[in-house]
Parts: sequence; C-alpha cells; structure tokens
Amino acid sequence: MRKRDLLTPIGITLGFIMIMIAIINNGGTEGAASFIDLSSIFIVIGGLVASMLINFKMEQIKLANKILREAFHKNDLRLPELIGLFIRLSERARREGLLALENELEDVDDPFIRKGILLAVDGIEPEVINDIMNAEITAMEDRHYKGRSLIEKAGEYAPAWGMIGTLVGLVLMLNNLQDPATLGPSMAVALLTTLYGTVLANLVFTPMANKLEIKTEEEIFMRQIIIEGVIGVQSGQNPRILEEKLSAFLSNDTKVKEEADNADFVGESINEA
Amino acid sequence: MRKRDLLTPIGITLGFIMIMIAIINNGGTEGAASFIDLSSIFIVIGGLVASMLINFKMEQIKLANKILREAFHKNDLRLPELIGLFIRLSERARREGLLALENELEDVDDPFIRKGILLAVDGIEPEVINDIMNAEITAMEDRHYKGRSLIEKAGEYAPAWGMIGTLVGLVLMLNNLQDPATLGPSMAVALLTTLYGTVLANLVFTPMANKLEIKTEEEIFMRQIIIEGVIGVQSGQNPRILEEKLSAFLSNDTKVKEEADNADFVGESINEA
Amino acid sequence: MRKRDLLTPIGITLGFIMIMIAIINNGGTEGAASFIDLSSIFIVIGGLVASMLINFKMEQIKLANKILREAFHKNDLRLPELIGLFIRLSERARREGLLALENELEDVDDPFIRKGILLAVDGIEPEVINDIMNAEITAMEDRHYKGRSLIEKAGEYAPAWGMIGTLVGLVLMLNNLQDPATLGPSMAVALLTTLYGTVLANLVFTPMANKLEIKTEEEIFMRQIIIEGVIGVQSGQNPRILEEKLSAFLSNDTKVKEEADNADFVGESINEA
Amino acid sequence: MRKRDLLTPIGITLGFIMIMIAIINNGGTEGAASFIDLSSIFIVIGGLVASMLINFKMEQIKLANKILREAFHKNDLRLPELIGLFIRLSERARREGLLALENELEDVDDPFIRKGILLAVDGIEPEVINDIMNAEITAMEDRHYKGRSLIEKAGEYAPAWGMIGTLVGLVLMLNNLQDPATLGPSMAVALLTTLYGTVLANLVFTPMANKLEIKTEEEIFMRQIIIEGVIGVQSGQNPRILEEKLSAFLSNDTKVKEEADNADFVGESINEA
Amino acid sequence: MRKRDLLTPIGITLGFIMIMIAIINNGGTEGAASFIDLSSIFIVIGGLVASMLINFKMEQIKLANKILREAFHKNDLRLPELIGLFIRLSERARREGLLALENELEDVDDPFIRKGILLAVDGIEPEVINDIMNAEITAMEDRHYKGRSLIEKAGEYAPAWGMIGTLVGLVLMLNNLQDPATLGPSMAVALLTTLYGTVLANLVFTPMANKLEIKTEEEIFMRQIIIEGVIGVQSGQNPRILEEKLSAFLSNDTKVKEEADNADFVGESINEA
Repeated sequence: MRKRDLLTPIGITLGFIMIMIAIINNGGTEGAASFIDLSSIFIVIGGLVASMLINFKMEQIKLANKILREAFHKNDLRLPELIGLFIRLSERARREGLLALENELEDVDDPFIRKGILLAVDGIEPEVINDIMNAEITAMEDRHYKGRSLIEKAGEYAPAWGMIGTLVGLVLMLNNLQDPATLGPSMAVALLTTLYGTVLANLVFTPMANKLEIKTEEEIFMRQIIIEGVIGVQSGQNPRILEEKLSAFLSNDTKVKEEADNADFVGESINEA
Repeated sequence: MRKRDLLTPIGITLGFIMIMIAIINNGGTEGAASFIDLSSIFIVIGGLVASMLINFKMEQIKLANKILREAFHKNDLRLPELIGLFIRLSERARREGLLALENELEDVDDPFIRKGILLAVDGIEPEVINDIMNAEITAMEDRHYKGRSLIEKAGEYAPAWGMIGTLVGLVLMLNNLQDPATLGPSMAVALLTTLYGTVLANLVFTPMANKLEIKTEEEIFMRQIIIEGVIGVQSGQNPRILEEKLSAFLSNDTKVKEEADNADFVGESINEA
Repeated sequence: MRKRDLLTPIGITLGFIMIMIAIINNGGTEGAASFIDLSSIFIVIGGLVASMLINFKMEQIKLANKILREAFHKNDLRLPELIGLFIRLSERARREGLLALENELEDVDDPFIRKGILLAVDGIEPEVINDIMNAEITAMEDRHYKGRSLIEKAGEYAPAWGMIGTLVGLVLMLNNLQDPATLGPSMAVALLTTLYGTVLANLVFTPMANKLEIKTEEEIFMRQIIIEGVIGVQSGQNPRILEEKLSAFLSNDTKVKEEADNADFVGESINEA
Repeated sequence: MRKRDLLTPIGITLGFIMIMIAIINNGGTEGAASFIDLSSIFIVIGGLVASMLINFKMEQIKLANKILREAFHKNDLRLPELIGLFIRLSERARREGLLALENELEDVDDPFIRKGILLAVDGIEPEVINDIMNAEITAMEDRHYKGRSLIEKAGEYAPAWGMIGTLVGLVLMLNNLQDPATLGPSMAVALLTTLYGTVLANLVFTPMANKLEIKTEEEIFMRQIIIEGVIGVQSGQNPRILEEKLSAFLSNDTKVKEEADNADFVGESINEA
Repeated sequence: MRKRDLLTPIGITLGFIMIMIAIINNGGTEGAASFIDLSSIFIVIGGLVASMLINFKMEQIKLANKILREAFHKNDLRLPELIGLFIRLSERARREGLLALENELEDVDDPFIRKGILLAVDGIEPEVINDIMNAEITAMEDRHYKGRSLIEKAGEYAPAWGMIGTLVGLVLMLNNLQDPATLGPSMAVALLTTLYGTVLANLVFTPMANKLEIKTEEEIFMRQIIIEGVIGVQSGQNPRILEEKLSAFLSNDTKVKEEADNADFVGESINEA
C-alpha cells in the first residue's frame, strides 16, 4: 500500500508552470519556443551524466532509476495498523505460543517484520534480535545514503555544466561579432544552459535529495517501532502494555501536529495567581 | 500572556522603508512603481513554493504558517513569576501535602508545568520525572528544528529562483534586441526577480530562522528551570532553598546584562600593590 | 588598567586611507566626493540594522554598543603582576591565616579574583571553588559568543544589503536610459552600495569578530591561571612552589615569542656524531 | 586481475564529446578551432602546477601520476573467490596444521593476504593479528587520503587559474580598444581559460577525487573481510562456519543490489488482516 | 641542517612566469607594463594589512615574518640519523649509566631532544616524560596553528580587497564616461586589483597555508618518534629492540613511497588456485 508522493510531481510541475507564466507573460507564446534548445539540453544533461560516470561506480549509477522513483512515492506511516498487527501477534503468541506466529507470516509482506517474527519464532534472545535488526537498519541507512548522494552530486554538477555551456556559447558568439543582428539571440542561447542547470539543481535535484533524507529518517523511526514490537511479542508482554508502549511512539509522532496547533511556548500559561 | 515580538515586523518594515527611500531618492515616486512586477513576484514566490513542496513532506509544510507566526511573537521570560509559582506550590505542598497541588492546576495553563505537577502529584520518582520531562524537551527541540529548517531552506531557494527569473528575463530580452528602446526596461524587469529573491532571503527568511533558533534555546532554558522547580516541590524542599536555587538561574540570566555593563575583562582590576 | 587596542582604529584608518589614496590617485580630489552618497549609506546601514532587528532579540542588540567598544580595547596580559598578587596572598595566608585575605580584597578590583578569594576565605573546598569558577568561565564564554555572533552576522548581512542597493540602483538606471549622459554616474552610484557593504564586511565586521574570538580565548586562559592561584593560596601552598606553578603558564605564554625566534623545527639540531 | 575502470575514460570522453557537439552545432567545425588556445592552456595548467608545487611536498607530488592511474582502474570485488580461498586455507589448516599454509602462499599474490597468513603461520595471537592488520588498513587509508587530497586541491586551483587567465585577457583587451574588430575574439580568448578551469574541475578532478574516496571505502571493506578470514583460519574454525560468516559480508554487499530491486520500504508490506 | 624548500620559490616563480607568458604572448612586451599599477598594488596590500591589523593581536602579526620564512624551508626527515642517535644513546646508557648521557648533549642541538635526554638523566618517570613532552607537542601544534591562521586569513582578505579596488576603479570610470578613449584603460586598471587579489590568494597564501599544515603534521610525527626514543633509552631497552621499534616508524613512513609503487589494491593478487 505504497502511495504516490504527489507533492514531488506537483512541485516540479508548479515550478515549470511558474517559469512558463513568466515567459509567456513577458515574451508571448512565440517567446516560449526560444527556451527550448536541443544542443543546450544536450550539453547540460550529457555533461552531467559524464561527471556522474566518473564520480560513481557502475553499481551506484544503476540505482539512480530506483532512487528517482523513490522520490515520487510516499510511505503511509500507518502506525495504527502496525500497532494493531503487533497486538494481534502478541495475543496469539500468548494463547498459542510463539510457534503459532509462523501462520501469521502469510499476512505480512514487509521483509523487515517477517525477519523479526522469524527470529522471534526461532527463539533467538531479545538482545540478539535487537542487534541483528539494528544492523539491518544501519545497512539500510548506508544504502539510502549512497543513493541520495547520487542526487546530491547531480545538484552540484548541473549548475557547473550550465556554466560550461554558457562559456562555450559566449566564446562562439564573441568570435562572430560581424553580424550584430545575431548577437542577442546567440547570447540568449548561451544563457539557456545556465538556466537549465540552475533549474535542475534548485527545482529537481536538491529538493529531491532533501526529501529522500527526510524519508530515510522516517523509515528508521518506523523500523525502530517494529523492533520494539517484535521484542515485546517474543517476551510475551501483555498486549495492553505493548499497545501502550507502541502508542507512545504514535503520540510522540502525531504530537507534532497537535502541539503545533496548541501553544507550544511556556509563556502563555502561567496565570498570575 | 504571550506578547507580539515587535522587532520582527519593525525590522521588516524598516528594511522595506530603507529600500523605498533609496528608490524615491534616486528615481522619484514614479520610479517606485517600476519595482512592482506581478509576473516577477509570481516566479519567485511560485518557484520557491514549488521547491518547498518537493523538499518537504505535507506535514511539515502545513506547519509553515504556525512557524511564521512564531517569529512575530516573543516570550516574556517572566522568570520571577515562574519562581513565585514554584515557591507557592512548594509552600502548599509542605503544608497540605502533594495531593493539594491538584487544586493549583486550575491556575496553571502551561501544559509543560501542568504535566510536571501531575507527575509530582502521582508520586512518580524524581529521576523518572526528570527523564520524562527531558524527553519532552528533546521532542520539542526536534519539532522546532523541523519547523526552522523550513524557513532556512526558503532562504536558500529564494535567491536561486531570483536568479532563474533573471535568466528567463535576459533570454527574452536578448531575443528582442530589435527595439533598443525596450532594452533598458526589459533588463530592469529581469533584475527585479534577483532583487526579490535577495531581499526575501536576507530581510525575511535568514534572520527569522536565526531568531527562531535563539528562541528555541531560550525555551529549553525555561523548561529546565521548570523541571528543577517541579522536582524541588515534589521532594518537599524548603521554599527558601528552592527560591535560592531557582534564583541562581535568574541571576545567571540577568547577569548577561549586568556583567555586560560592568567591566567584563580581568585586566581592569588588579591594583599594583 | 585596560588599554586602548590601537590596532583596531589604526587598521580601520589605514584601510580607509588606502581606499582614499586609490581614489585620489586615479580620480583626483573631486573624484573623492563621488564616493559619498547619503542614500547609499542609508540603504546599507538601514538594511543591515533591519536584518539585525529580526535576527536578534532586544537584549542582544543592546549589547552591540558594548561589544564594539570591546574591539577597541586590549587587555594587558600582565601575568607577572597577577603572579605577584597570588604570591603576596599566599604569603599572607600562611602567616596570618586565610581570613586575613579579606583585608587584601580592597586592593583587588577584578570581580573574578575577588570572588575566588571570598570563596577561599569562606573555606569552600577546592573542587567546589574549581567548579563554581569554571562555571563562571563557561558563562562568560557563552556571553562573549552571543556578542560576537552579532558582529559576525553583521559581516554577512552587509554585503547582501550592498547587493540589494546595487540592484535597486541598476533597475532605476535601466528604466531611464533615455539620457545616456546620466548612465555612467547612475551606475557609479549603484555600485557604491556594493562597495560600502564589502568594505564594512572585510574591513570592519569580520576582522573585529575574529579578534573578539582571540580575546575571549586569552581571557579564558587568564581566568584559568586565577583559578590555579586561588586554589593554591587556599590550600596553603608554599609561595615558591605556587610561583613556579603559575610561571609555567607565563613561560608557556611568552614561549610563543621565544620559540618563534629560535629554531622551532627539529631538523636543525642533530649533529652527525 | 585488476581491470581498467572504463567509466572514467568513458565519462571524460563523453564530457568532451558533449562540449564538441555543442560547439559544432552552434559554430560549425571552424568554430571548434577557436576553442584551442595554447597560451590559455599554458596559464591554466602551468598555474595549477605552480600552486600544487607550493601546496604539497615533493613526495606527494611524485604520487600524482600513480593516483591518476588509480582513477582509471577498478577492482573486481571478487568476494566469492576470496571466500573460496579462505575455505581452502581453512580446510588445509585443519587437515595438515597451520604450518602447511606456507605452501599455499605461492598461489597468493596480494601482500595483505600474504602478511595475514604469515602472521597466522607464525602463531601470533588473533588479537595481535587483528591489531597489526588494522594498523595497516589505517595506514592505507591515510596514504589514500594524502593522494586524494592532491586531486581535490587541483579541483580548487583549476577554476581559480581559469579566472586569473580571464582577468589577464580582459586587461589586455581593454588596453587595446582602438580596434573594435578584435574586441570580440580577444574576449573570446580571455573566456577560454575560465572554460578550461571549469571543465578541468567539474569533469576531471572533482569527480575523480570522489571516486577515489568511494574506492578507498571499498578497499577497507575488502580488507576487513580478509582479517576475518585470516583469524578464522588460524583459530581452526570449521570451514562451513567460516564460509557462512564471510558470506554474511557477501550478502551484505550484494544485498545493495537485491534490496534495491525489492521494495525497500516498510509501507508496502502489512496486509490488513 | 635545515634546507631551503625550493618548491615554494619555484612554484611562485613558475606561477608568475606562466602569467608573464600569457601576457607577452597576447599583448607583447609593452602589454606587460600595463600590468604594474602602483596604486592598485597599494590598495590590495594596504587593505590586506589593515584587515590583518584589526583581525589579529600584535604578537601574532610579529610572527608573520617568521612564518613566511618557514614556508620556504624544509625539514630533512633524516629519520635514519635520528634512529642512529638513539641507538648510540641507548648503548652508552646501558654501558655507563644514564648520567653519562649528559656528555652526549654537546652533540645534540635540537632543544626537544635535549629536553628529553635531560628529563631521562634526571630520572623522571617514563609516564611523566611522556606527559611533559606531549604537552610540548600540543603547545607547538597550537603555536603553528596560530601562525598558519595568519596566512589563511590573508588568503581570504586578499580577494576581498581586490574586489574593493575594482569597485573603486569602476565607480571612478563610470563618473568619467565623457572621454570614451579612456574607458578601456580605466576599466583595465580597475580589474588589476581583482587580478592581484586572486593571484595572491591562489598562488601565495592558500598553498602556503596548506603546506605549513602538512609540515606541522610531519613535525608532530618526528617528535613522537623522539619521545619513543627517549623513553626507550631511559628504560634501558636493548639497542636492537629500540632500533626495530623506531624503524617501524621509518618503514611506516618510507612505505608510502614503496607501497605506492607496488600494487596497493587487493584485487591484483589472488590467483585462482
């Protein structure tokens, strides 16, 4: 039940619409055509790809596609369902023993939860489960970091290649000053690459890399709750207590919104008695 | 009793007045009109919003309004009243027992103080109270950080979109060099977005983000005093001693001003004997 | 006995003289007049103040005056006199007891030394004295940091407002291209704000903030010697040993110069035997 | 069996092809000639070398050649073969004793593995082996860092010398405004150095330095597996268990790809039961 | 036996030669004259000095001369001779006792080694010797840092003053547009300060500061070997063992070159058996 993160395409579309409005408002529709220049697109994108090929190893570059897709999806934080699952597991484990949880596995698709339950069923000690699953979180964090750094570097190389394209265009233009009529359009074309590079960096790559970072933090938070749940289930904790414990995370998380609406600062509150 | 932080609107107004004076002084009142260009405002604000949508999650963006409001309010550090409250609570607790403090709750609006008193009344141990309330401070710090980063990023994207707008304007201008008369005004319009972006970043977003950081530090300081007070009340500390203890914070805080007025450096002081 | 730190005014004066020479050399004395433009000064200083008002709280801004004054004073590191004082105190304490030190207090103006002696006279334990006085050093460090950050931020906002002023000037100029004769002077005026902002940042604010940091480090060093001295006096240390101990600091400090004159590197020294 | 890292030459070639396409597309083949200017190449490369000579010691500069070659080679991570080797060693050690491993040394070229086996054969204790070999890893890390910093600094000095070249060109051009026909070409030549510097930094040095960093991390990872293997062999670990232990690294490494293909986020997986 | 570090003067000379070649190639010998402008040199150097006066204390500024000289000298890392010295000392100490080492002092010029031997002769305990000599290393590190920061800051202020000079020149030029013939040369002069500032920063100050940092690290390495040697000598260690111990440093250091020549990466080495 992974949903599309509509904010990313909406943001990118909005950014381009704002640029379009600015163009058409000032230059009319025929002005818009002058903003598409194939060879300018070529040098910025091609140069960016060239720098990326040198900067990264093939394995990382192959991940690019997957990572970009990630930026367009969001993760329903369905914490209540997660808590519901662990209460169910906890009740069954107390009624029928830990081994009975194996039947529940059919209903669980998430490999991280599955792994946790399997470890619990195998009777691994809680500290060991904690170690193994935390190691997995660290590995995920590292993996996400490697993917994100791809996007971050793209945000650094894009403006550089925009500048390179502009310099190439300026040199060509300055060598052909004989015809003053072409001066303006030539320089306009030269500036296009800087525009492309700046837009790519500030509308696409940098914001995406930042959102991927926020998502990774969220994912780590979710997985820590899962570890709590698995250990709670295995140690035969009372389902009520487990619920309360996991709900602490929930409230801690939804509190962000609640408290933001309430007065967050102390100053409002002491009545002169 | 939260007051408006007049410095923020005064600062913003002053900034705009300085710009106005510079405009009118050099360009007259009709010159001022040339500084308002709707499509330029559109591309800077719209592009900024677009980058923010990609950069952040919906939950964080919803907080933007609240956070901006925060920057316009200040928190009277009314430490003396806070100390007065805890002395009163301490006296009553010693006279009538901790349970009697529940009646005092009516007069306390601040949820953090309320929580502390309730924990004390419930007979929770001091270390546990300390842990719970410090966890809350950490959560608040994290929440404030998330909100502040929204403003900080806005301060980074605003100049970038100013540059994008200027590049769009320059490309359009350079494609229409036939009429030299329009050259100047077109370029003037192109530069407006850079002006907007720079003003937004340096007059609005960056200073606001910095002030929000200062406020968070202050809030953390206040809450640590409250924890001291709650634990002091619960452990039945002598009201005089509690007052002295909390006043240490007070003097530590007001000392900033005092010492700043006095000579702060050692050198002034040793008389050759 | 705090002396003026002549380097700061000399440096600022020298900077302005260099700029004057450059102006007069190339533009004659009448050229110099064109570098004073009231409305340009207005927008840079006014805008800077506006950003500062938003960025800081009133308490910090009030400190600005004091902090700027600090940058113009220096602190004679009169370590020998400090050591002399502690030897005298140590001798008297051994002869007449710690209580006799109270009479010495009349000759000591520095509040930090006074506090230390009073703590010693009160018979507070050495570790407690150490804790209390170190806490005071930390508080001073924090206070100085807050003040310094005011100057540092000014060094960041000044060039930004210089750029804003130039953009305002350029927009006005570009809207009035009809009269080519005014083109040059208008643009000259526009550039003045960038000049003001750059000079303020690189001649005034940034170097001052750096020197204030160096002074804070020195002050911390001085106060740590005082703590050593106070504890030595209180524990009835032999005046000779105390002198040697404190002189270690002295040599460590003056060594900077000595060693700098001597060969500092190992290579010079091993004779092939 | 060290292979060429084709990505680096492909990336550099691609980058230059993109620039060529942009040039020829807009300026024709005769335009391309105007992008080669010997004295511009001289000042950027020569200035870069000059700054490097001052910045580094002779020993480090001599490494430059070797380091550049490194960026063009890749390291097959042949983990399976490495694991196979250690299983073989482990079996033989258990059959014929540790001393028999000396005969296996003929088949091992890698000095790090050789050193490990020799230490094991010599009967050094596992902790000591671990210490010695980890010290070697640290030394390698330090050595690679020194080499990489050479490339990183080149990426910083290249654009600076590009700017210096452009300033020289501009000053010359501005002193020879008499002939307006040469204005354009002179400025074109002036801009070439900035182009060279920017391309060198963003297509060659910065991406190479980043890839060298990634390679160092990989190498450290490989060597830590070797340490595990050597200690496993020496302590007479069961070959099956050793295989499983080392395969954990393998899976941990290849998992990057696997997991990247699978759903990596929790959200996909909990079925509402 | 401290040698001149020829790389620094060679690098600076080479940098200026590259600039000269670029100038003469494009502008002829008479063009070279236009690159010397006294008032431009004045404002950059003078302004730089002004900022430095405000930024630093007199004591640090007085060190500038010494530090600059340091950048032109190198330190033969004559580790073998150092090791030879300690073997000789060790042998004599074992034969004739520690006191006999005092006679060896005549042959040792390096104050750090002398201090170490004197401490050993005085019978100070090894840990205390270690503490005292490490404290000296820390003090040296701090001293070198203070000196280096002078050069680093110069590398930051130089381009800023280059920009200030250019702005001054541009304002003057723009106020005198009446004579178009002087336009080019005036602007050429204006750009000279930016050129001076950029060259100073990227050819002189920044590379020097970086090399001074590398030298400090090397010096610390050397002194740590000396500490090892002194303690070894005092504890009456066998000269052979001491030699082996100190040679470990040697190999560790010369290994940089050796290993750099050999294959450094694991991949080359495992033969499929």
